[in-house]
Amino acid sequence: MNIQFKFQIDDFSQTFTSPYLLVIYPISPMMVGLPARGKTYIAQKVCRYLQWVCVSAKVFNVGNYRRKLHGAHQTHTFFDSNNPQGESARKEAAALALKDMIRWFEEESGTVAIFDATNTTRERRAFVLEECEKHNIQTMFIESVCQDEKMILQNIMDVKLSSPDYKNVDPESAAEDFRARISHYEEVYETINEKDYTYIKLINVGSQVVINHIKGYLQSRIVYYLMNLHILPRSIFFSRHGESMFNLMGKVGGDSDLSPRGRQYAQELPKVIAQNLGDHELTVWTSTMKRTIQTAELLPYPKLQWKALDELDAGVCDGMTYEEIEVQYPEDYANRDDDKFNYRYRGGESYRDVVFRLEPVIMELERQTNILIVCHQAVLRCMYAYFHNLPQDELPYIKIPLHTVIKLTPKAYGCEEVRYKVDIDAVDTHRPRNPKKQSLANGPGNGLAEHPRP
Amino acid sequence: MNIQFKFQIDDFSQTFTSPYLLVIYPISPMMVGLPARGKTYIAQKVCRYLQWVCVSAKVFNVGNYRRKLHGAHQTHTFFDSNNPQGESARKEAAALALKDMIRWFEEESGTVAIFDATNTTRERRAFVLEECEKHNIQTMFIESVCQDEKMILQNIMDVKLSSPDYKNVDPESAAEDFRARISHYEEVYETINEKDYTYIKLINVGSQVVINHIKGYLQSRIVYYLMNLHILPRSIFFSRHGESMFNLMGKVGGDSDLSPRGRQYAQELPKVIAQNLGDHELTVWTSTMKRTIQTAELLPYPKLQWKALDELDAGVCDGMTYEEIEVQYPEDYANRDDDKFNYRYRGGESYRDVVFRLEPVIMELERQTNILIVCHQAVLRCMYAYFHNLPQDELPYIKIPLHTVIKLTPKAYGCEEVRYKVDIDAVDTHRPRNPKKQSLANGPGNGLAEHPRP
Repeated sequence: MNIQFKFQIDDFSQTFTSPYLLVIYPISPMMVGLPARGKTYIAQKVCRYLQWVCVSAKVFNVGNYRRKLHGAHQTHTFFDSNNPQGESARKEAAALALKDMIRWFEEESGTVAIFDATNTTRERRAFVLEECEKHNIQTMFIESVCQDEKMILQNIMDVKLSSPDYKNVDPESAAEDFRARISHYEEVYETINEKDYTYIKLINVGSQVVINHIKGYLQSRIVYYLMNLHILPRSIFFSRHGESMFNLMGKVGGDSDLSPRGRQYAQELPKVIAQNLGDHELTVWTSTMKRTIQTAELLPYPKLQWKALDELDAGVCDGMTYEEIEVQYPEDYANRDDDKFNYRYRGGESYRDVVFRLEPVIMELERQTNILIVCHQAVLRCMYAYFHNLPQDELPYIKIPLHTVIKLTPKAYGCEEVRYKVDIDAVDTHRPRNPKKQSLANGPGNGLAEHPRP
Repeated sequence: MNIQFKFQIDDFSQTFTSPYLLVIYPISPMMVGLPARGKTYIAQKVCRYLQWVCVSAKVFNVGNYRRKLHGAHQTHTFFDSNNPQGESARKEAAALALKDMIRWFEEESGTVAIFDATNTTRERRAFVLEECEKHNIQTMFIESVCQDEKMILQNIMDVKLSSPDYKNVDPESAAEDFRARISHYEEVYETINEKDYTYIKLINVGSQVVINHIKGYLQSRIVYYLMNLHILPRSIFFSRHGESMFNLMGKVGGDSDLSPRGRQYAQELPKVIAQNLGDHELTVWTSTMKRTIQTAELLPYPKLQWKALDELDAGVCDGMTYEEIEVQYPEDYANRDDDKFNYRYRGGESYRDVVFRLEPVIMELERQTNILIVCHQAVLRCMYAYFHNLPQDELPYIKIPLHTVIKLTPKAYGCEEVRYKVDIDAVDTHRPRNPKKQSLANGPGNGLAEHPRP
């Protein structure tokens, strides 16, 4: 029973619209490492990134299977390799997760399944590799090695003590038990150096990286993404340009100047940022369009203009109002409402296109510390969806109002968000999803349009 | 005497248009490795890539300095570490190259200087690092390790025997002498593992890669680029779409269908490719525009559409003839002729913009084997300039005629090129440089427009 290839090599009829989709074999990145080395964090980040670039991806967490099979409240002795019962129970959980993963590849045409387990011994890695090979799944091990005691302790405090494993356990005993659990793993731990395996080893959060036998487009993208991750504390600020003349006229696209109210916003923006940045450095990124450059003009920080941050290109509809588009291109107008993420304006772009051109921006954003991005509604929706892991279907309807600063602070899992509304009126450019279409597609209440985030 | 920073951290007046330019310290990638390990190949590739993305880059090859100082015809004993005269002569060459490099940073505002030397001992690396630190130059070692005897021999045959060191020496003695030279280096060779240094170690042409303490945007881009290089034999085919209806009308941009002659070209293309591909696999990349998709329609290979391969966006001028542009936007028309590489159409793109959006395509192209790209004049000019290392000034004037297949075959240094002209007439869309302006800017005969490549 083999996984179906995404396409047969001799099937020339298919055309692919992204190199991400030109993937012949499904891939399973397999985490490797002692407990509290950030494996789950890495697995989740990779999954979120891949979903954002339209790759079907899913995490299979063996810990969750273990808890389902054997209950949550196991003490450290369960993880002792000299405890045959615990040992076989844990292997059972891994096998079950693996089985589910293979089923997902087969029945749901998955592309990347991240297998989130410790996989700390050569024997275990050989076992999962063999299972995957039987099903034509490419494996790729991702080991996280951390020798920084402070960082490990931080991870235990931030994440592990709030895990279901320690519900209703006092933090001190929980920490002690967890340390004992780590010791059991340490007794049998073998770092990855199997020379024929495909692997990436991240040492002390990427300060050293070892890459072995990486092949193919997706693997190479995953490696590059992992190389760029860091966990230093920082904030990312988003703001649309101030209200523009085209906003006032209800026109899409163009390269118009700020309206008088937009200029007022540009005057207020430095204060808002200074108040919420604290004593940190900042770099400002704008698009190459006048309205974002004018909005950032008074900000006393180094600035960078990215062409890739320019607004979604409305093609032939550039400079028109939605009413004009409805009259002149009624069919396009209707199509866009049907599937706003994939609809490409004639001679212009779709949200999907914008995601792909933003990919280098996101990559660089992962590398940076504090950044303020001043750009456009559609572009910010795409980036916002990346950080909050929102699905394609909701992405084009995310509310990013004018004259509002959004502050995102990445945490272990997900991002904290605060919004600062500046007290200067502006037109509302948000167009909600067609309610009839929405209820058909998602059932009620599933769209962000009706449940705006705080 | 310190190198000037590209900008002072407190100088907020500057805005940068590319993350490549937001570089505070100059960087020196320093090659490390035994002779015949592809160091010069890597140095040249990195330099070419950086120049293409508009970073000022230069290679300083210590071998050239050694030959200038002490003549070309040194036998292997010159390279023996027990020969104090040879040893000091070689150190002198390295010091001189280093001095020139520092002068280049200081006087010509260089950004990346690739120091192409063996740097095979810890002592030598400590020396060059210290010199660079004195001048605020970030160092980054790039070691090439190769244990594949066949590959080393190939490199000696392809490159070393034709080096000036062995002019008028018979190949057999040259090879023997060169092997003796390698042995001298092997006696003292220490692979890089200095834990505080920034380095990347490429083992057997990237089958294993070790990365240590990489910091900053440019370093990370260089590493990603190096990870993607391979030296397998392959060919890259370029073709513009067949003649389009807009070509016939002399209009720029748009998304028109092929003309009848363009359709004929689409019919001939599969034969031309089949005859010149040999018994190899091929993937076809097109843009998302109708004229490239129609041109590739009959090609019996897997296809991928890249939005990033779409033609340069002419903004407000889209769909106009050059004559109409001259009338409606006379100032823009003149500006474009002044500096065609940097001129950005209103609401559209410049050649520089196209280079940046093509960067992921070039990266993927480096990873691939045989690829046929069917796209557009401006886009192909940018890619052609990358492979032939042509300067920005010449790039917008490169001749890429319709109904012609260009086959590039990457070699150790540079690319071999063959052009296949298909015998179907088409309009000529090439607009030569304004001859008056050209002679002012470059002196006569410096532009490709007058010296078309074969």
